[in-house]
Amino acid sequence: MSADTYLQLQSLAKPSGDLEVSLARVPMTDPGPDEVVVRVEASPLNPSDLGLLFGAADMTTVRSTGTADSPAVTAKIPEALLRAMSGRIGQSLPVGNEGAGVVVRTGSSDAAKALMGKTVAMLGGAMYAQFRTLKVAQCLPLPDGTKPSEGASCFVNPLTALSMVETMRREGHTALVHTAAASNLGQMLNRICIADGIGLVNIVRKPDQEKLLRDIGAKYVVNSSAATFMHDLVAALTATGATLAFDAIGGGKLAGQILTAMEIVAVSKLKEYSRYGSTSPKQVYIYGGLDRGPTELTRGFGMTWSLGGWLLTPFLQKIGGEATQKLRARVVAELKTTFASHYNREISLAEALSPDAIGAYAKFGTGEKFLINPNKK
Amino acid sequence: MSADTYLQLQSLAKPSGDLEVSLARVPMTDPGPDEVVVRVEASPLNPSDLGLLFGAADMTTVRSTGTADSPAVTAKIPEALLRAMSGRIGQSLPVGNEGAGVVVRTGSSDAAKALMGKTVAMLGGAMYAQFRTLKVAQCLPLPDGTKPSEGASCFVNPLTALSMVETMRREGHTALVHTAAASNLGQMLNRICIADGIGLVNIVRKPDQEKLLRDIGAKYVVNSSAATFMHDLVAALTATGATLAFDAIGGGKLAGQILTAMEIVAVSKLKEYSRYGSTSPKQVYIYGGLDRGPTELTRGFGMTWSLGGWLLTPFLQKIGGEATQKLRARVVAELKTTFASHYNREISLAEALSPDAIGAYAKFGTGEKFLINPNKK
Repeated sequence: MSADTYLQLQSLAKPSGDLEVSLARVPMTDPGPDEVVVRVEASPLNPSDLGLLFGAADMTTVRSTGTADSPAVTAKIPEALLRAMSGRIGQSLPVGNEGAGVVVRTGSSDAAKALMGKTVAMLGGAMYAQFRTLKVAQCLPLPDGTKPSEGASCFVNPLTALSMVETMRREGHTALVHTAAASNLGQMLNRICIADGIGLVNIVRKPDQEKLLRDIGAKYVVNSSAATFMHDLVAALTATGATLAFDAIGGGKLAGQILTAMEIVAVSKLKEYSRYGSTSPKQVYIYGGLDRGPTELTRGFGMTWSLGGWLLTPFLQKIGGEATQKLRARVVAELKTTFASHYNREISLAEALSPDAIGAYAKFGTGEKFLINPNKK
Repeated sequence: MSADTYLQLQSLAKPSGDLEVSLARVPMTDPGPDEVVVRVEASPLNPSDLGLLFGAADMTTVRSTGTADSPAVTAKIPEALLRAMSGRIGQSLPVGNEGAGVVVRTGSSDAAKALMGKTVAMLGGAMYAQFRTLKVAQCLPLPDGTKPSEGASCFVNPLTALSMVETMRREGHTALVHTAAASNLGQMLNRICIADGIGLVNIVRKPDQEKLLRDIGAKYVVNSSAATFMHDLVAALTATGATLAFDAIGGGKLAGQILTAMEIVAVSKLKEYSRYGSTSPKQVYIYGGLDRGPTELTRGFGMTWSLGGWLLTPFLQKIGGEATQKLRARVVAELKTTFASHYNREISLAEALSPDAIGAYAKFGTGEKFLINPNKK
């Protein structure tokens, strides 16, 4: 590669309904005074990245459309979903929320120069690229001896898990429910809740996920595929007192089942029948869309309930810089313990565009966890 | 009737799954020092009363099961819904949230004595009865010359409509959406919003409901049955800036369609594409259940949204006594204008148990509005 250009993965939704993911060669830009250039060596493939990478495309239609030198894949966006993507049609967008790498050039400011040669974690998009020019403030210097692969997931999952607990405290709840609970994020949340003494009800779909969580110390794990699911959930909610849930699934009946189970617990404590149900708060936040289908609520949970969307960035904006800084400091301090991520495979940018790899990492919720190393040969 | 007993309508869910509504003869109780006995002369049949009256019973199974002297009706509760009513099985419950009548006996306190002979509006349940003994604080003395029929609906609809506007102000919204908007409540809400200069988007299902609302001055009326519904709704939301909706329907796709339309308006103002959608608040409160079916959300409205239950009593508890008193004072001051209710028929307690009348008043949302006069011969 030339020193003047580098490879960047881009996703383009075309007016025809084709979604094309390709590697573009983009010009290296000089860092501004307060900026640095980082050689990106590790960037995770999170579900939130897949949303930008493939949008609403039908993943069964993925096919290779590039060459060996210039790999690309294309998939069809169903016509009904094309409108929802209208804001991005015709723009070739870089992808990759977060990553880590080594600072190889810096701007003229002291703060920038101080980072020269350091390994940093980064948040800010466009991480699926050999290089990333960004502001010093978007970099989190990692302790000496930390590998980029160890710092690649410093932001999205750790801050999301910590922010769930923070939301719980700020909104007056005392325990949590989490779905798709065996995920990397879910495992972090278990470690946080165990350390902080918070009741956590883990909802999973498979026996091996139950075992995985119990093996890391989870006390309450319920399987939504079991015939006894509602009974088990009510028992776990009774034991923990959880009235707040974070749901990564989104579609189907699960969010409503959680509200129903919370209401069963609340009504069991009422001294007098009310046809409006309990007035105990019951909150489910949908923060992911592993099931893109409609959310179906069979409203048998009284009149005091709330279901809403939840997203990390607006939450951090709401709590402000100082509170966010505290969360970030905890992530760095516990990077190799609480917030350690496990990846099944490390792949190059070109490998990220092979239909085989896509088939493995794009299986929302049950896929393997991949790490992209854009400088892997 | 004997002076020692009076007729009271009661609803009983039996363990067998039969729901029986009958007239019971109950003993007259002496008023406590701070209580009065009111001869009930007018009490409306609101959707919220129907919830207690017939619960989850299948209204196609209603049949007469009493005698001419002792009328009763029975309907079947579908087995799947019986569990949701388990808290009330075996208890014969009085019905009727609100009403008005004349004070005929009083307790010994000055406050109670001052009400003797007065026409008062009442809130507190058990109004479908010839008499009601209740606390002075539950009575609202009506201005001289007000008939009980004019004061029968002083609380539920007027305070709900005013509280919707109050919720809007307290939660930082500036305009409203309302569904089933041609209802008595919806008409009140139009009169309040016109008087207070608040943008109101009325959603109805039929052309004659559109006309009814336009005739009382509604500016934004959209028909959810029209092929152009989403387009019309987006236009009305754009014009008003409404980001808060109160939905009386509950089931089906409407709540999600409102969130989607709000998001279309919000996204049209974004300068840059975000795959997470807009971060403008979008709130829908479900306050009724005219459609008892599941709520179906096709989540195409970003990550910043909230759907929840809303109920008058907890809202008034939250805003406190002083703020509630202000709302009540406005109701009394505008009882014959803003808060006037229209009824199609006045019926006796016995008539309320005729399958014909039930067929008319229990057609949620499209039924006629009935007033019960428990002392009608």
